[in-house]
Amino acid sequence: MTTTPSPLAAFAERERLKLLAALSEWLRIPSISTQPEHAADCRRAAAWIAARLERLGFRVETIETGGHPILWGVGPEVPGAPTVLCYGHYDVQPADPLGEWVSPPFEPTVRDGNLYARGTADDKGQVFTVVAALEALVASRGSLPVNVRYLIEGEEETGSPGLTDLLTREPERTRADAVLVTDVNIVAPGRPSVDAALRGIVHAEIHVRTLQADLHSGIYGGAAPNAIETLWHLLEKLKGADGRIRIPHFYDRVKRPTAKELAAWRSLPVKEKGFREEAGAKALVGEKKYGFLERVWSRPTFEVHGIVGGYTGAGSKTVIPAEATAKISLRLVPDQRGKEAAAQLVQAVKRAAPKYADVSVKVFSSVDPAQTKLDSPAYAALDRAFREVWGRGIAPIRSGGSIPIVPLLQQRSQAVLLAGIGLPDDRLHAPNEKLTLEQIWKGIVLFGRFFELLSTENRSQ
Amino acid sequence: MTTTPSPLAAFAERERLKLLAALSEWLRIPSISTQPEHAADCRRAAAWIAARLERLGFRVETIETGGHPILWGVGPEVPGAPTVLCYGHYDVQPADPLGEWVSPPFEPTVRDGNLYARGTADDKGQVFTVVAALEALVASRGSLPVNVRYLIEGEEETGSPGLTDLLTREPERTRADAVLVTDVNIVAPGRPSVDAALRGIVHAEIHVRTLQADLHSGIYGGAAPNAIETLWHLLEKLKGADGRIRIPHFYDRVKRPTAKELAAWRSLPVKEKGFREEAGAKALVGEKKYGFLERVWSRPTFEVHGIVGGYTGAGSKTVIPAEATAKISLRLVPDQRGKEAAAQLVQAVKRAAPKYADVSVKVFSSVDPAQTKLDSPAYAALDRAFREVWGRGIAPIRSGGSIPIVPLLQQRSQAVLLAGIGLPDDRLHAPNEKLTLEQIWKGIVLFGRFFELLSTENRSQ
Repeated sequence: MTTTPSPLAAFAERERLKLLAALSEWLRIPSISTQPEHAADCRRAAAWIAARLERLGFRVETIETGGHPILWGVGPEVPGAPTVLCYGHYDVQPADPLGEWVSPPFEPTVRDGNLYARGTADDKGQVFTVVAALEALVASRGSLPVNVRYLIEGEEETGSPGLTDLLTREPERTRADAVLVTDVNIVAPGRPSVDAALRGIVHAEIHVRTLQADLHSGIYGGAAPNAIETLWHLLEKLKGADGRIRIPHFYDRVKRPTAKELAAWRSLPVKEKGFREEAGAKALVGEKKYGFLERVWSRPTFEVHGIVGGYTGAGSKTVIPAEATAKISLRLVPDQRGKEAAAQLVQAVKRAAPKYADVSVKVFSSVDPAQTKLDSPAYAALDRAFREVWGRGIAPIRSGGSIPIVPLLQQRSQAVLLAGIGLPDDRLHAPNEKLTLEQIWKGIVLFGRFFELLSTENRSQ
Repeated sequence: MTTTPSPLAAFAERERLKLLAALSEWLRIPSISTQPEHAADCRRAAAWIAARLERLGFRVETIETGGHPILWGVGPEVPGAPTVLCYGHYDVQPADPLGEWVSPPFEPTVRDGNLYARGTADDKGQVFTVVAALEALVASRGSLPVNVRYLIEGEEETGSPGLTDLLTREPERTRADAVLVTDVNIVAPGRPSVDAALRGIVHAEIHVRTLQADLHSGIYGGAAPNAIETLWHLLEKLKGADGRIRIPHFYDRVKRPTAKELAAWRSLPVKEKGFREEAGAKALVGEKKYGFLERVWSRPTFEVHGIVGGYTGAGSKTVIPAEATAKISLRLVPDQRGKEAAAQLVQAVKRAAPKYADVSVKVFSSVDPAQTKLDSPAYAALDRAFREVWGRGIAPIRSGGSIPIVPLLQQRSQAVLLAGIGLPDDRLHAPNEKLTLEQIWKGIVLFGRFFELLSTENRSQ
């Protein structure tokens, strides 16, 4: 049996090489938002996608922030059609440890049907797929079926300070019939899903100073306070080996998922063994009384992302280090609050700090966790689009990740859809990040059909 | 009242500028033995001091090792006179953190009567002072009063592997009437002292791997094992916040100092407040039941010198780190043994390591603690030389530092003298290491008189 491909699928098929070349061009720009030396690259990455939207007839406003600019793209007006607000980001995580990349992070490379580069799945590749879907619609129908607003920021990986300001000042920008946030993945290959909740996050850094300068450990060892030792004892007071976070009142607002949610999660094709293997771990760890999906989707965390102190060069140097630093985060779940958790952390560090040390904790940003509504016309349209393209409807799951801006995107629309085409093994934030090419080609059809179905099923009120 | 300076003091006075220029030239060579890129500098530093000895009529043998060469200098024969073996090292510690040096570590600079540079006190400046004393003797007497052997190694800061091999193979080299080890300081300004015991040391590195690669902390946080967290829990199991080392049987062989020793230490002009201020600490820490001098001189330690893991660049990166490393040392006291303590550490790490992690501990070197004899003619000669030059005799104290080679230097001579002219605030191994110029000028007279007195008081048997 042969089937005639839909016009959208035909576009994806026909334009494949051109699209791949274009996406690769965008990925080559190292738009690392956390590193000041890449500020110009962030601006170049913004300009690149702005030009792509302008080719589709968008008016693109570049909104300056204290950091990297926000793009606000307004598509050609489609009178009477619903309005969809799309959200994505052009900034990426740092690429180190560089040595672990098979191909360089900013030289996009295709291997085994995957496109490898920093930013493929998180999030340039997904934004590009939505934009390609819009291009496919224009190519096949002559115009877009819905009113599209595209909000693309460059500070997602640093807590979205600029966009937070903007949407706090101007919440009307979020008025839409649906909000599509393509900064997530589906739960398993062939198993479409939408994230019904996201964890929030508090970014912070703990710094310990015990001495004016490093000392000789022979002369002072046994009496002078060691900053690294002070830091590890402090961390031990904040989180035990049992996986329990020891910050007072930290768990007070944590809401357990419903029995129905937990049952749905158990039926997913995501099993502990596979998850563990994908993680590259010998065993999973954490709070014993919760299942692994419950731990990553609905339990808060205390994680140390980086630690440094003392002599870390070649060979040995017998100093008592004067300073040590740990970069940490707290992941938060409904109904915890970002600012409250940050204050609890600061308080706990203060209480745990010994008198002999100067201990400071710097909170960089805090983001509330989010929960979204799943019974909107937009959800129905996306569900139908997935059924057509993937042969299967949406499973409502959760995400352990954080998208700082989601709580603000919900200000004027309940129909927020956290729906992407990434896969769970895309290695976001890690070496060898990738996006599977087949997901891009199917994603173009998916998003195109979503816009079409939304237009016919849900006329703007 | 005016006094005529002794010929030795006159030499020190007259040659001051030339000596300072020469020492500065030596200090400018960054002979950092732990860093392979400085291997050629180590060789240059060795050649520099060899040439200086040769000018005094020494035959200098350069003995190759697996690492940096050893110098074996044999002075002109003085028939019937006693033989003194002098020991020192031309290698230095790394200089970082560079930002904390007031003047660059390898640009010797005089400020407030001190000479600042890496290697001034530890140990180039002290070796230079002994060599200058020999020069003063030749200048004032025409020849040396004793037979001198000079052993100068370039691997003291890396555990003296080459010299250990040499002296194990050829213990006869240590046959002497006295051994002078000038790699120590006096206990306080104006208060001459000799170290009656040294701590031993085990250098090691603990490495933890929990994952094949770093992971996204949103996706895996709560279930995937974090290498930094694993490391801190492990360190907590090895040493508690009470300062007690938790390695099984680690304290079994620890011998407390005698009541007489403890009483002598209490009479020293070294008080807790001054020691704390000199350390640049708000408070001293450690095992509560021992006084501060007892802790640094006669208690073993577990110290972390450096720690690194995960993301340590600018900004934040929300990874679960796959790897973390800590550089550590154990300081040992009589009657602990280096190899035994190293084995206890390895065993304790293995026992404390969780099953989900790959934990390895690499032992780089181990050195036994040492105790020396204080009732020899050489001790009496040094005591008299100190009385003449400093106006005060020797206080027998201890040192918390380690000199890897001392136990081997004791093989054929009981009269080992650990006596230097450094001061306690010389900041060995730390930024702004210095040697006080006045100590050098007085040290030249001191060592010159020591050799003269030894020659008259103790004819070789």
